[in-house]
Amino acid sequence: MAILPLAPGETIGILGGGQLGRMLAQAAARLGFDVAILEPAPDAPAGRVAAHTVRGAYDEPRALEALAAVASLVTFEFENVPASAVAHLTAQDVEVAPNARALAVAQDRVEEKSFLNSIGVATVAFAAADSPEGAVAAMAQIGAPALMKTRREGYDGKGQRWVEHAAEAAAVFESLGGKPVILEAPADFVRELSVIAARGRDGELAIYPMAENHHENGVLRRSVAPAAVSPALAEQAERIAAQVLTGLDYIGVIGIELFELSDGRLLVNEIAPRVHNTGHWTMDGCEVDQFEQHIRAIAGWPLGPTAAIARVEMLNLLGDEVDAWLKYAGEPETRLHLYGKRDAKPGRKMGHVNRVSPLGPERR
Amino acid sequence: MAILPLAPGETIGILGGGQLGRMLAQAAARLGFDVAILEPAPDAPAGRVAAHTVRGAYDEPRALEALAAVASLVTFEFENVPASAVAHLTAQDVEVAPNARALAVAQDRVEEKSFLNSIGVATVAFAAADSPEGAVAAMAQIGAPALMKTRREGYDGKGQRWVEHAAEAAAVFESLGGKPVILEAPADFVRELSVIAARGRDGELAIYPMAENHHENGVLRRSVAPAAVSPALAEQAERIAAQVLTGLDYIGVIGIELFELSDGRLLVNEIAPRVHNTGHWTMDGCEVDQFEQHIRAIAGWPLGPTAAIARVEMLNLLGDEVDAWLKYAGEPETRLHLYGKRDAKPGRKMGHVNRVSPLGPERR
Repeated sequence: MAILPLAPGETIGILGGGQLGRMLAQAAARLGFDVAILEPAPDAPAGRVAAHTVRGAYDEPRALEALAAVASLVTFEFENVPASAVAHLTAQDVEVAPNARALAVAQDRVEEKSFLNSIGVATVAFAAADSPEGAVAAMAQIGAPALMKTRREGYDGKGQRWVEHAAEAAAVFESLGGKPVILEAPADFVRELSVIAARGRDGELAIYPMAENHHENGVLRRSVAPAAVSPALAEQAERIAAQVLTGLDYIGVIGIELFELSDGRLLVNEIAPRVHNTGHWTMDGCEVDQFEQHIRAIAGWPLGPTAAIARVEMLNLLGDEVDAWLKYAGEPETRLHLYGKRDAKPGRKMGHVNRVSPLGPERR
Repeated sequence: MAILPLAPGETIGILGGGQLGRMLAQAAARLGFDVAILEPAPDAPAGRVAAHTVRGAYDEPRALEALAAVASLVTFEFENVPASAVAHLTAQDVEVAPNARALAVAQDRVEEKSFLNSIGVATVAFAAADSPEGAVAAMAQIGAPALMKTRREGYDGKGQRWVEHAAEAAAVFESLGGKPVILEAPADFVRELSVIAARGRDGELAIYPMAENHHENGVLRRSVAPAAVSPALAEQAERIAAQVLTGLDYIGVIGIELFELSDGRLLVNEIAPRVHNTGHWTMDGCEVDQFEQHIRAIAGWPLGPTAAIARVEMLNLLGDEVDAWLKYAGEPETRLHLYGKRDAKPGRKMGHVNRVSPLGPERR
């Protein structure tokens, strides 16, 4: 088992070799750790900045054992880590953080909303269905229109469709693959916000200022942080973050997506048990960013400060938008973060820019 | 030859796998580059955050060819790169930056001071000697006491001794190994300052605010930046930086160590054709730090802003001082940068901390 607080020089394992793994690896190295990446694809972005790379499937025992041979502490960059992987690592005396419960809750949209409601955190109304008939019945419960999503997997707007009329429910269910689904009532929101927060080994909490997020076709396009919010709204978000982190006995950074309703209430849309795209602004807007914060939390270190030191507009560079790197590099207020991905497929997250400006005087 | 501006996805080679190479590698990766490290020692700190590592001596043709096979642009983390290495890389159509002239000037203390004086930049009075008799004659020219240093190599106070009386000159010469030396008149300085500056491919200059530096036993202990200086002193330093960069037709970041005399004049003590320990404060005190700036400059990118966004006290962690990592991690104002070195030998640079505080209102 990892000896905590984990000392510099030790190796931290990361499941997943994409951009989140890459930025986690860089933060870990800054603190003196070595990093080992487990990733099925060759030439992964995170592997190219890490001391060790293990190539293999996430549920492949041999790959997990190779990771366990170098890393006594393992974390992940994505929520769809197979439960068997966590179990296999744990059986080899490897500490996995965040915990299996956080993964289980985040992997199933019905579990997620049920958990949130059980700790007193509001979500949209929802109902589960695992058959065409069940989908029709769920529609009767929720009312039309409703958003049908597969319970598991699906991200960036994939695996979901609107059901405009109850009569379509069975057909939409089939079109999503006939898998178990959740039906969600629409949220009459005025803004999409998110809160990035961390919980340490001793229960310490660190909560960043909220970001205001703008999606296009289900993919995050832009975040602005700190979001302009009333103290009451900020307090509401902090209370939600604290409830979720404590309720999951969570260790690490979590991303919580929120809907702000016109009456000022916040609903939780989704939780991501990992560093989060809407937290990329912290790389240039805070002294300790979400990546270092996550490493600190899982390593049993004290958490770092979360106050904003600048206002940031974060813009994702999708697909060939990354070709404008030279333009961004020439903007004095723009910090460029590129992920080293070889192939700029349409819509693929290739990098992001943080456009930095001074905080308003009211925020210092 | 490297096609400039170098596009993200290309590979940058770095001679040297220590902490400067490591921090350069991390900055390069943030901009989407891959990095290849050439380093004779195994398990080098920089290699553990780089896509490629070539193990070999800096002047070993096979190692240089292996580097050239992946990197069309090569830079270095230390000034004692053999001239033959640069020649061998250049012969293979690899672009090396900074250039061979900057290396030659920085590798020989007599060349260095002669160059500086030739472009109108002041240094202490000096004289060269390559025999015991020559050392005696040089003392007659400079006067006692004088500081005798080997012309080449020697860093962090190694390879140098004070000559208190002219009569000792021959013996001190022998004690330094009988190698060619420089004799330097003492500088009656009130402060040690430094300026970190960069020059881009198109001659663009970027100059950081000065740091005030404190050495112990010849090793940098502490830097405070931006140093409290008059506008006239800042202007003098900027003029020196511009003269040196332009005079060397320099590409990349340079570190220039300065003596501030009681009459307000600045003398150049030493130039380092690379990122510099007294520039580590920029990692948390500026939007674009010296490492990213160096990568931008050599890659032919536009240079980034250099204005300070915070006041920083940088403290080197030497030898077992690094064992206090947990204390530093618990200080909210302290940013920790550890180098991943295995062995905390006495005096070895194991990491640094940047203690961040707001800029005074006069500096915004």
